[in-house]
Amino acid sequence: MFDQSPAMTLRPIGIVRSDFKEPTSVRLDLTKITAGIEIDPELNEALDGLEGFSHIIVIYWMHRAVFDNKRLKTYPMGNTAAGLKGMFAVRTPHRPNTLGLSTVKLLERRGNILYVQGLDAIDGSVVVDIKPYIPGYDSASNPSVPDWVKIGKENIT
Amino acid sequence: MFDQSPAMTLRPIGIVRSDFKEPTSVRLDLTKITAGIEIDPELNEALDGLEGFSHIIVIYWMHRAVFDNKRLKTYPMGNTAAGLKGMFAVRTPHRPNTLGLSTVKLLERRGNILYVQGLDAIDGSVVVDIKPYIPGYDSASNPSVPDWVKIGKENIT
Repeated sequence: MFDQSPAMTLRPIGIVRSDFKEPTSVRLDLTKITAGIEIDPELNEALDGLEGFSHIIVIYWMHRAVFDNKRLKTYPMGNTAAGLKGMFAVRTPHRPNTLGLSTVKLLERRGNILYVQGLDAIDGSVVVDIKPYIPGYDSASNPSVPDWVKIGKENIT
Repeated sequence: MFDQSPAMTLRPIGIVRSDFKEPTSVRLDLTKITAGIEIDPELNEALDGLEGFSHIIVIYWMHRAVFDNKRLKTYPMGNTAAGLKGMFAVRTPHRPNTLGLSTVKLLERRGNILYVQGLDAIDGSVVVDIKPYIPGYDSASNPSVPDWVKIGKENIT
């Protein structure tokens, strides 16, 4: 199936500076988290134009996560009542490729630093991509989720 | 800045099967694209529970893209009137890490195959992560974009 898979090695493009220092399984009030994303100064110019967007999407590496090939299911946010769910059905960091994805509010760009609200990456996380958030492309129309997401705890970390 | 950067090598978790065979700079009607994502059978169980979501987010490797360190800006969708924009301000595949991000409608899961609508990855693209789309987490409230995105061509590829 993957005979011709390309070599896929990521290079760091930036780093997260945040007061959020340790991973947690508790749901966070993301509106209260303001973080800085320090972009590699050599890539500074690649940010030009991003200031015009209210929101951006941050893809980062969850460097503290470990994936166990034998453990393909988990309880979403520790909610045992929900039953075991596959790693791809939840947002656990413990997945085959430990990529985190966070849609955040862009407060300000100052040189090579992006100040954002709502980033759930912990301090020191390596950022691998930044994309502008485009309504209609990144948003789903009439999205629905299973009851186990709606009730009580959500599986957002 | 990146002295302690972790090794970030991605492993393939699936592959795109689509009639969309070649990259294009033309904006596509994504609603007309139905594709299959064939997940590594060894990871089949990790999909359990995903069927309950109407939409999923696909992260894939844009294997045909090339990034030139000396070219950090581009015209969004070839729109010269918009002026040059940084690679992180547009959705061009030619970026430091050639990760594609697509929010798609999940039509059906059949075993290890996910049938989706709206995937702009070309046939043969390697998939590196699948995440459930969670409204309020993956959607932005009151998002805004610059005029050059609204007028005419959009920078979605």
